[in-house]
Amino acid sequence: DFLNALHEVIPAFGASTDDLERCRLHGMVDCGDRHKHIYQRAMLLVEQVKVSKGSPLVTCLLEGSRGSGKTALAATVGIDSDFPYVKIVSAETMIGLHESTKCAQIIKVFEDAYRSPLSVIVLDDIERLLEYVSIGPRFSNLISQTLLVLLKRLPPKGKKLMVIGTTSEVDFLESIGFCDIFSVTYHVPTLNTNDAKKVLEQLNVFADEDIDAAAEVLGDMPIRKLYMLIEMAAQGEQGGSAEAIFSGKEKIKISHFFDCLQDVVRI
Amino acid sequence: DFLNALHEVIPAFGASTDDLERCRLHGMVDCGDRHKHIYQRAMLLVEQVKVSKGSPLVTCLLEGSRGSGKTALAATVGIDSDFPYVKIVSAETMIGLHESTKCAQIIKVFEDAYRSPLSVIVLDDIERLLEYVSIGPRFSNLISQTLLVLLKRLPPKGKKLMVIGTTSEVDFLESIGFCDIFSVTYHVPTLNTNDAKKVLEQLNVFADEDIDAAAEVLGDMPIRKLYMLIEMAAQGEQGGSAEAIFSGKEKIKISHFFDCLQDVVRI
Amino acid sequence: DFLNALHEVIPAFGASTDDLERCRLHGMVDCGDRHKHIYQRAMLLVEQVKVSKGSPLVTCLLEGSRGSGKTALAATVGIDSDFPYVKIVSAETMIGLHESTKCAQIIKVFEDAYRSPLSVIVLDDIERLLEYVSIGPRFSNLISQTLLVLLKRLPPKGKKLMVIGTTSEVDFLESIGFCDIFSVTYHVPTLNTNDAKKVLEQLNVFADEDIDAAAEVLGDMPIRKLYMLIEMAAQGEQGGSAEAIFSGKEKIKISHFFDCLQDVVRI
Amino acid sequence: DFLNALHEVIPAFGASTDDLERCRLHGMVDCGDRHKHIYQRAMLLVEQVKVSKGSPLVTCLLEGSRGSGKTALAATVGIDSDFPYVKIVSAETMIGLHESTKCAQIIKVFEDAYRSPLSVIVLDDIERLLEYVSIGPRFSNLISQTLLVLLKRLPPKGKKLMVIGTTSEVDFLESIGFCDIFSVTYHVPTLNTNDAKKVLEQLNVFADEDIDAAAEVLGDMPIRKLYMLIEMAAQGEQGGSAEAIFSGKEKIKISHFFDCLQDVVRI
Amino acid sequence: DFLNALHEVIPAFGASTDDLERCRLHGMVDCGDRHKHIYQRAMLLVEQVKVSKGSPLVTCLLEGSRGSGKTALAATVGIDSDFPYVKIVSAETMIGLHESTKCAQIIKVFEDAYRSPLSVIVLDDIERLLEYVSIGPRFSNLISQTLLVLLKRLPPKGKKLMVIGTTSEVDFLESIGFCDIFSVTYHVPTLNTNDAKKVLEQLNVFADEDIDAAAEVLGDMPIRKLYMLIEMAAQGEQGGSAEAIFSGKEKIKISHFFDCLQDVVRI
Amino acid sequence: DFLNALHEVIPAFGASTDDLERCRLHGMVDCGDRHKHIYQRAMLLVEQVKVSKGSPLVTCLLEGSRGSGKTALAATVGIDSDFPYVKIVSAETMIGLHESTKCAQIIKVFEDAYRSPLSVIVLDDIERLLEYVSIGPRFSNLISQTLLVLLKRLPPKGKKLMVIGTTSEVDFLESIGFCDIFSVTYHVPTLNTNDAKKVLEQLNVFADEDIDAAAEVLGDMPIRKLYMLIEMAAQGEQGGSAEAIFSGKEKIKISHFFDCLQDVVRI
Ligand SMILES: Nc1ncnc2c1ncn2[C@@H]1O[C@H](COP(=O)(O)OP(=O)(O)OP(=O)(O)O)[C@@H](O)[C@H]1O
Ligand SMILES: Nc1ncnc2c1ncn2[C@@H]1O[C@H](COP(=O)(O)OP(=O)(O)OP(=O)(O)O)[C@@H](O)[C@H]1O
Ligand SMILES: Nc1ncnc2c1ncn2[C@@H]1O[C@H](COP(=O)(O)OP(=O)(O)OP(=O)(O)O)[C@@H](O)[C@H]1O
Ligand SMILES: Nc1ncnc2c1ncn2[C@@H]1O[C@H](COP(=O)(O)OP(=O)(O)OP(=O)(O)O)[C@@H](O)[C@H]1O
Ligand SMILES: Nc1ncnc2c1ncn2[C@@H]1O[C@H](COP(=O)(O)OP(=O)(O)OP(=O)(O)O)[C@@H](O)[C@H]1O
Ligand SMILES: Nc1ncnc2c1ncn2[C@@H]1O[C@H](COP(=O)(O)OP(=O)(O)OP(=O)(O)O)[C@@H](O)[C@H]1O
Ligand SMILES: [Mg+2]
Ligand SMILES: [Mg+2]
Ligand SMILES: [Mg+2]
Ligand SMILES: [Mg+2]
Ligand SMILES: [Mg+2]
Ligand SMILES: [Mg+2]
Repeated sequence: DFLNALHEVIPAFGASTDDLERCRLHGMVDCGDRHKHIYQRAMLLVEQVKVSKGSPLVTCLLEGSRGSGKTALAATVGIDSDFPYVKIVSAETMIGLHESTKCAQIIKVFEDAYRSPLSVIVLDDIERLLEYVSIGPRFSNLISQTLLVLLKRLPPKGKKLMVIGTTSEVDFLESIGFCDIFSVTYHVPTLNTNDAKKVLEQLNVFADEDIDAAAEVLGDMPIRKLYMLIEMAAQGEQGGSAEAIFSGKEKIKISHFFDCLQDVVRI
Repeated sequence: DFLNALHEVIPAFGASTDDLERCRLHGMVDCGDRHKHIYQRAMLLVEQVKVSKGSPLVTCLLEGSRGSGKTALAATVGIDSDFPYVKIVSAETMIGLHESTKCAQIIKVFEDAYRSPLSVIVLDDIERLLEYVSIGPRFSNLISQTLLVLLKRLPPKGKKLMVIGTTSEVDFLESIGFCDIFSVTYHVPTLNTNDAKKVLEQLNVFADEDIDAAAEVLGDMPIRKLYMLIEMAAQGEQGGSAEAIFSGKEKIKISHFFDCLQDVVRI
Repeated sequence: DFLNALHEVIPAFGASTDDLERCRLHGMVDCGDRHKHIYQRAMLLVEQVKVSKGSPLVTCLLEGSRGSGKTALAATVGIDSDFPYVKIVSAETMIGLHESTKCAQIIKVFEDAYRSPLSVIVLDDIERLLEYVSIGPRFSNLISQTLLVLLKRLPPKGKKLMVIGTTSEVDFLESIGFCDIFSVTYHVPTLNTNDAKKVLEQLNVFADEDIDAAAEVLGDMPIRKLYMLIEMAAQGEQGGSAEAIFSGKEKIKISHFFDCLQDVVRI
Repeated sequence: DFLNALHEVIPAFGASTDDLERCRLHGMVDCGDRHKHIYQRAMLLVEQVKVSKGSPLVTCLLEGSRGSGKTALAATVGIDSDFPYVKIVSAETMIGLHESTKCAQIIKVFEDAYRSPLSVIVLDDIERLLEYVSIGPRFSNLISQTLLVLLKRLPPKGKKLMVIGTTSEVDFLESIGFCDIFSVTYHVPTLNTNDAKKVLEQLNVFADEDIDAAAEVLGDMPIRKLYMLIEMAAQGEQGGSAEAIFSGKEKIKISHFFDCLQDVVRI
Repeated sequence: DFLNALHEVIPAFGASTDDLERCRLHGMVDCGDRHKHIYQRAMLLVEQVKVSKGSPLVTCLLEGSRGSGKTALAATVGIDSDFPYVKIVSAETMIGLHESTKCAQIIKVFEDAYRSPLSVIVLDDIERLLEYVSIGPRFSNLISQTLLVLLKRLPPKGKKLMVIGTTSEVDFLESIGFCDIFSVTYHVPTLNTNDAKKVLEQLNVFADEDIDAAAEVLGDMPIRKLYMLIEMAAQGEQGGSAEAIFSGKEKIKISHFFDCLQDVVRI
Repeated sequence: DFLNALHEVIPAFGASTDDLERCRLHGMVDCGDRHKHIYQRAMLLVEQVKVSKGSPLVTCLLEGSRGSGKTALAATVGIDSDFPYVKIVSAETMIGLHESTKCAQIIKVFEDAYRSPLSVIVLDDIERLLEYVSIGPRFSNLISQTLLVLLKRLPPKGKKLMVIGTTSEVDFLESIGFCDIFSVTYHVPTLNTNDAKKVLEQLNVFADEDIDAAAEVLGDMPIRKLYMLIEMAAQGEQGGSAEAIFSGKEKIKISHFFDCLQDVVRI
C-alpha cells in the first residue's frame, strides 16, 4: 500500500537522492486518502513516461498551501521512480545568485537530464525559483521565460523526462501561463480532521482519550504547522518535558496544547 | 486530398526540414474540415508568393488555443512549400540568451532568407520569442520592434519571402499592433465533437461502441490535450496496459478514460 | 495633372532617390481627389521653402491608417521636389540598433541636410523610429526628445529644410506633443467606394460588370489591403490563374473575390 | 516706447548675444499691450538685480502656449539688460547628449555666471531641457534636481544673477515644484483679435479692407502660427506669388487665406 | 521572575553579546504582563531548539509599533539563550552598502551559524534590511528572496538555529509572504496606562501624587517615546533642572510635563 | 530675549559656522511669538543633548511652507548651540553628484560628528537631499534608507548629537516614515497679519499710516516672499527709487505695492 511503497524504496543506481531525502526529515506518515491518491497518480505518470512512445515529456504540478507536504511528496515520487537521473532544483542551493546564473544552473540540470534515458526533475517552490514577490508583483522574467520553454521542449530522440513542479502560489503561476504548460495539476490539501487524527495516532504523543479533541480543534492545518505545534506543546508549560513525551513516557497535556495553538494560529 | 498531400511531401533540395519535422512527432492525422481549409489557404499563399510579381512578401498568422496544432500546421506548410529555404525560428533554440542576441539571430534568419529566391520563415510561438508574460505585461520591446520592421520590410529585388507566425496570445499581439502587420490571420480551432471523433477513429484505441461517448465528453479540446489524455488512459488503472492498447490487442476502458479526463481538465 | 506630375519626375542631380523609389513599388495610380489635394498642398510647401525668406524650416505630417499610402506619398513629394538633398529616415535601415545609435544616425541626416541649400527629409513611420508600442506605452524618449528638438531647430543661415513625417499612430504622437510641433498635418484617407472603383478600373482585373460590386463591398479599405486582396483573388480557387489575370487574358471571379475578402478582413 | 526700446539695443561689451539674436529672426513687432507689460516688468527686475543689495538672485518664468513668443521675449530682455554675461541654455545645443552631460553643461553656465558681477541666464524651453514627455510622464530627474537647486542657490558675495525661464508646459512645471521656485511668473498670451490686427498692419500683406476680416477669423492664435499662415497664403493658390506679395506689389487674396487657415488649424 | 531573569544573565562562552547589549541602553525595566509573556514564550522556543530533534530551525517574529521595545526584547532573548553563537543583523552596520553586499553579509551570518551547534540570529528591523519604503512601495527583492530562502532552509545535520525577527511594518511583511514563513509571531504592545504607571514608578521622577495623572494622559505610548518625554520634561521650563531630577533631589513639574507632551505627540 | 539671543551669538571654537551664516543673509528680524517659541524649544533640546545621559541622540524636524524661514531658524539654533561641531548638509554643495556620492558625503558628516563630544547636524531641505519630485513620486531610496538608519543610530559611547532637519514636503516625509523617526517636529508658520506688521515695522520702508494696510493684504505670506515683494516695490514704477527707499529717504508708494503683489501672488 501507500505507506509501504514509500518505505521500501531503495535509492537507484547512480541517481543521488540525498537532496531528495532531506526533504522528508520526519519520514512519511500516512496523511489520508487524498494525499495517497496524488501519490498513486503521479507514479502512473512515471510509468507512462517509461513505457510510452508518444510522451517523451510529461509535466506535473503539485500546488497547495504552504507546508502542506508538496515537496516531501514530489521528492518521494522522484525517489520511488527508480529513474537513473533524479534531481531537485531548489532556490536553497542558489541563494544570492544573479538571475542569469540561476538560469544557467537550471538549464544545466535539464541538459544533464537529456543525456539520461529516463529522468525526473523536481522544480521545487517554483515561485521562489522565479524570485516572486506579490508586491508589484515582481519576479524574474528571464527565469520564467526559460522555464516556459524548458517545460515544453521535447527531450532528444529516445530520452524521456518527467518534471514535477511544486508551488504554493498557484494563482500567480496561473496568471503567467505556467498552469497551462503543465500536463496535469494536483492540489495537495491541508489535513482535515480525519487526516489529522490519523497523523496524531501515528505520532503517539497524546493520551488516547485526547486525540479526538486535539484533532477537532486543528481545522484544516498544513502538516508542517501540525509538527511545529506538537514540538511546542511537547516542551510543557515550564519546559523540560520534551524527552519524556517523545520517548512515550508522558503525554502532552491537552490544555497546554490548546494554549500553544493560539501562538501558532497567530495571536 | 489534405492528408495525402501531407504525407507525400519529400524534403526539398537544400532546405533542412529536420527542425520542422520535429514539430509533428505524432505525424498528421485528419483534424476535420476547418484545419484542412486553413492548410489549403496557406498553400495558396505559398503559390502567390511564388508566381506573383507584386507580392514579394506575404505574411500569415496562425492563432489559436495552446496545443491546438498551430506549430504542426505551420511546419507542414513550410515543408510542403518545397521552397529552397525553409526555417523555423523558435525560442527553444535560444533559451537563456540575452534579448539582443536573440534579436541578432532572428535578423540573421531573415538575411539568409533574402539570399534565397524563395523562402518560408516560421516564427513559432511569437509571444515566447517576445519573452511575453501577462503580468505587467512584460515583453522584449527590442525584439518586438525588430519583428515589426522585419514583417514589413520587402526582400531585395527578385527575392520572395513567406512568413508564417504562430501564437496562442492573439489578444496581446493585437494590442501591440502585430495583427495589423500580418497580411492574413487564421484561427486554428480546438477539436469539436466531430473532429475529435474523426481523430479517435484514426487512433483506434477505443472499442467501436465507446468512440461516440468518448468524443462526446471531450468538449472543444485542443489536440495536444487529447493525445495526453489517451496516453494516460492507455496505462490502465494499475499501469502496465499501454503496450497492449497501442498494439491494438486491448482497448481503453471507457470508465477509466472518464477518470483520467478529470485530472487533465483540472481537479 | 496629379498622375502626370507623378510620372514625369526625373531624379535630381546628386539626390539619391533610390530609397524613395522603393517606397512605391506598384507605381502611383490615381487614388481620388483627397489624395491629390494632399499632394498638391505638400508641393506648395516645397515651393514655400524654396522661395520664402521667413520659413527656412517647414514641417509637415502625413497621418492615416496603416497601408493608406502615406509613405508612397511622402516619397513622391520628396522625389518631385527636385531638391539636391532628399533623404528618407526609416526604421528599416536601423533594425536592431541601440537607441543611441539610431539617434546618432538621425542627427547625422539632419546635419547633412544643413549643408545643402535645399533639403527634404522624410521621417517615415515615426512611431517605429520611436520604438513605440502601445502597451505601457513604451517608446524611446531619447529619440523622441531628439526629434522634438530637430523639428524646431532652424537650419543655419541660408539653408532651407522641409521635413515630412508619416505615422499611423497620430493619437500617440499627439499625446507626446509631436503634432503641435509640425507646421501642418494632413490626414491620408483610406479608399472610399469611389476611390476604390477608380483604382480597380486602372488595375483592369475585373470584368466591367463586376467592378461596381467589387468596389461596393470593400468599404473604406487602405490601398495596401486592396492590393493584397487582388493578388490573393488572382490566384484563383485552385491556384494557377494569376498569370492569365494579370496579363489581361482572364478576369477575377467575383465570387472567389468575395471569398478572399473574408480572409483579409479577419475571420 | 516698447518697440523703440527693442530696436535701439546694441549688444553689450563682452556678452555674446548672437545666440539670443537667432531667437527673433523676424525682428520684434508690436504684439499689443499685454506683451509690452511683461517686457516692462521684466526690465524692472533686471534693474532690481542690478541695484538691490538683498536680491542677488532673481528668477522669472515666462509661460504660455507653444509659439506665443516666449523665447523671443526672454532673449530680448537678456539683450536689453546690457549685463556683461548673458547666456541662453537651450536643448538645441545639447541634442542627443546624455542627461549627465547636459547637467554638467548647465552647471557650467551657472558657474561662469557666478564669475561675472551681473548676469542673465535664459533657461529656454525648460520642459525640453528636462527631456519631458507627457506620457508616463517621463523626464530627467537628474536635470530637474539640478535646476531646483541652481534656481535657489545664491551667487557668491557681490555677484548678481537673473534667471529667465520659458515653458509651454506650465502645469508640468507646477506639479514638480518649479513654479514655487521662481520669484515671479508671467503668462505670455496668444494674440487676440486686436493684437493680431496690429501685427497684420505692420506686416502689410493684406489689402486694407481685408485686415479686419483676416484678424477676425484667427481667434487667439500664437504669433508663430500667424507667421506660418501668412507665408503659406503668400505663395498663392498655384504658387509663385510670394515675391510680389512680400515686396508689397500684390496683396494676399483673402479667400485663399481662409483656405490656408484650414490646413494650419488642423483638418 | 521576568526582571530577575533579565538581569542575572552573564554573556556566554564565545558569543560576543556587545552588539546586543547596546540595544538596551536604559537596561530593562518591567513593562507589564504582556511583555513578560512574550519573553517567556520566546525562552521556551529557545529550549525547544536546544532539546528537540525535529525542530532544527525555529523562527519567531516580534512585531509592534516603532519604539515599543522589540529590539531590546529580541536582544535580551538572544543574550539569555546562553547559546555559543548569538548575532544581530542590523542595517546600522550596513549603511550605504549595495544590496548585493548586504545580501552577502547576511548569508555569511547564517553560514557562520551553521557551524555552531546552537545559534540565535536576530534580524533586526527587517523592513530596514529590505530597504523598504512605503511609496511605491520599494524594497530590495534580492535581499527579500534571500531571507525567504534562509528562513526556510534547514541547518546542516546536528546544528540548531533560532531566528528572531523584529519589524514595525508587519503589514508589509505580511503582504510579501514573510509572516507565513515565521513559525510564530508575537505582537509587542505599546504601554497601556497600567504598564506606563509601572514604568514611571521604577523611574522615580515624579512626585507620588502625580504618577497617576501622568500615566493617565499618555494613552498607549511606546516606551521609547516615554523615555524621550521624561528627558525633555526633566530639563525644566528654563533648562538646568535635569541633574536635580535624575539624582532624585527634585521632581518633574506635572504642568510642564503636560506641556512637553504636546511637542512629542505632534503639534 | 529672542532677538537679542540671536544677535549676541559669537561663532564657537573650531565650528565653522560660515555656511550657516549664509543661510540668514538678511539677519534675523522678529517674526512673532510662534517663531520665537520654536527657537526656544529647540534650544532646550540642545541643552538636553548636552546634559542628559539617556539621550545621546536627539532629532528635531522643522517643517513649513517654502520660504517660511526654516533654514534660517535651523542655522541659528546650530550657531547658538555653541557646540564644537556644527555642520549643515545641503543639496547646494552636492549639485549633479551621483546618489551614491551624496550618500557617502552624508555618512562622512555623521562620522565626523561621532568624533566630537557635542555636535549639531542640520539636514537642510531633506526632500532635495532625497532628490524628491512629486511626479511618480521619485526620490533616491539609497539616500532615504541611509538617512532612516543614521537618524536612529546612536553615536558611540560618550558622544552626543543633535540633528535638525528642514522640509517643505512634510506629507512626503510622513509617507516614507521620516516623521516617526524624528523625536519632535515643529511647524514653522507663514506670517499672519500681526507677524507681517511686526516685520514691516522693523524694515521701515512704509509710511506709518500705510503699514496696517500693507500687512492686511498680505494674508499668510512666507517671509521670503515678503522680502521679494518689498524689493520689487522699492524699485518704484519707473525704476530708480530703491536707494532712496532703503536709505529711509523715501517710502514705498502703497498703490504700487499693491500692484507688485499681483505679480508675486501669480497673475
Ligand atoms: N507524509 C508526511 N509524513 C511526515 N512528514 C511529512 C509528510 N509530508 C510532509 N511532511 C513534513 O512536513 C513538513 C512540510 O512538508 P513540505 O516541506 O513537503 O511542505 P511543502 O508543501 O513543500 O511546504 P512549502 O509550501 O513551504 O514548500 C516537512 O518537514 C516535511 O518533512
Ligand atoms: N494534425 C495532427 N495530427 C497529429 N498530431 C498533431 C496534429 N496537429 C498537432 N498534432 C500534435 O499535437 C501536439 C500539439 O500540436 P502543436 O505543437 O502544433 O500545437 P500548438 O498549437 O503549436 O501548441 P502551442 O500553443 O503550445 O504552441 C503536438 O504533439 C503535435 O505533434
Ligand atoms: N497611389 C498609389 N498607387 C499605387 N500604389 C500605391 C499608391 N499608394 C500606395 N501604394 C502602395 O500601397 C502600399 C502601401 O502604401 P504605403 O507603404 O505608402 O502605405 P503607408 O500608409 O505608408 O503604410 P504604413 O502605415 O504601413 O506605413 C505600398 O505597396 C505602395 O506601393
Ligand atoms: N514680437 C515679435 N515680433 C516678431 N516676431 C516674433 C515676435 N515674438 C515672436 N516672434 C516670432 O514668432 C516665432 C515664435 O516665437 P518664439 O520662438 O519666441 O515662441 P515661443 O513661445 O518660444 O515658442 P515655443 O513654445 O515653441 O518655444 C519666432 O519665429 C519668433 O521670431
Ligand atoms: N524593558 C525595557 N526597559 C527599559 N528600556 C527599554 C525597555 N524596552 C525598550 N527600552 C528602551 O526603549 C527604547 C526603544 O526600544 P527598542 O529600540 O527595543 O524599540 P523597537 O521596538 O525596536 O523600536 P523600533 O521600532 O524603532 O526598532 C530603547 O532605548 C530601549 O533601550
Ligand atoms: N527671522 C528672519 N529675519 C530675517 N530674515 C529671515 C528670517 N527668517 C528667514 N529670513 C530670510 O527669509 C528667506 C527665507 O528663509 P529660509 O531660507 O530660512 O526659508 P526656508 O523655509 O528654509 O525656505 P525653503 O522652503 O525654500 O527652504 C531667507 O532669505 C532668509 O534669510
Ligand atoms: Mg516545499
Ligand atoms: Mg506551438
Ligand atoms: Mg509607411
Ligand atoms: Mg521657445
Ligand atoms: Mg528596533
Ligand atoms: Mg530652506
